Amino acid sequence: MTNHPVSDRLAHQLHFVRELDKLKGVLRRTSLIDRSRRENSAEHSWHLAMMALTFAEYAPPGTDLSRAIELLLVHDVVEIDADDTFAFDVAGNLDKLERETAAAERIFGLLPADVAREFRARWDEFEANETKEAQFANALDRFQALVLNDAAGDGGTWRAHGVSREAVLRRMAPIETGAPGLWPAALEAIARAFSASAASR
Amino acid sequence: MTNHPVSDRLAHQLHFVRELDKLKGVLRRTSLIDRSRRENSAEHSWHLAMMALTFAEYAPPGTDLSRAIELLLVHDVVEIDADDTFAFDVAGNLDKLERETAAAERIFGLLPADVAREFRARWDEFEANETKEAQFANALDRFQALVLNDAAGDGGTWRAHGVSREAVLRRMAPIETGAPGLWPAALEAIARAFSASAASR
Repeated sequence: MTNHPVSDRLAHQLHFVRELDKLKGVLRRTSLIDRSRRENSAEHSWHLAMMALTFAEYAPPGTDLSRAIELLLVHDVVEIDADDTFAFDVAGNLDKLERETAAAERIFGLLPADVAREFRARWDEFEANETKEAQFANALDRFQALVLNDAAGDGGTWRAHGVSREAVLRRMAPIETGAPGLWPAALEAIARAFSASAASR
Repeated sequence: MTNHPVSDRLAHQLHFVRELDKLKGVLRRTSLIDRSRRENSAEHSWHLAMMALTFAEYAPPGTDLSRAIELLLVHDVVEIDADDTFAFDVAGNLDKLERETAAAERIFGLLPADVAREFRARWDEFEANETKEAQFANALDRFQALVLNDAAGDGGTWRAHGVSREAVLRRMAPIETGAPGLWPAALEAIARAFSASAASR
């Protein structure tokens, strides 16, 4: 053993890393493909980062893939405080930004200031959705829910919540911008969801 | 809607992405900090990638952080077929490499050959543990279990399985190589685990 003390800086970083564990308990509306349970936001973020590696070729030319992955890893951390807001929950989305901004202040604020600024910049970039990297990341975030719903064999979450095909198409539009090569697959999945939905009524 | 068909190439990539969903059902021996349940390998991989961003400054000089993150995202995918092998399970570790290699062949083999090669190279690099990036990634993989056990307030997994302090120190040695700046924190956590363990006997 040694007597080297853990620095105050490292202690703050460790606190943040322990805090991140809570994202594993934040549940999304989407279920796993086998429908055994709802997906949590930590494993969702991993799945998105893996999709970025898998679908790299569908990003707009010049996209910095590593940066897109960083945005995806960080984008849901605010849900530790603000919880997941269902995309089609109109009331919940009214104060979503306010709740999530307060969460970002607190959670990234656990870190030393320089590291906190880097994390906050990643989250801000994802939310602003202006850079190619953010647009690719946002496209994957939309597409992943679609892939899970589609593989589960029906309109899943949307049908349960009475979401219309038009609302889903609006929600998925960022895929066409941020990952245009995935758009045909998105359209096919939406078509399947709503034809299954219609058939089962 | 459009008539653009989904290419055969994209169909294979989608199959791989659906397959990845199964990693969310592979349970590790480690519990979440709140001890509500065991951690799964997908959320574990996300946690590791976030630790790479948080602890970047503790990587050996010249480490390519983005590459280390890629290795961490990919390193446990083989567990979809091979399951998680407890680090201190001697019998389970005898055929671990064989089981995991077969898993890598099948799972990465779902992808188009060029993308499959990229994923396989990431997994091989992590396993070989020779590059700085792999050593940093392996260090974080060890350190994360330590952080969770420590935060849960006792020797947790180790105590339950009768693992000795010496075996834990051997298991954690890659932290000293791959992320030397985290080693003091590792030693402190190990010391706490075994003093708590002794006190409760």
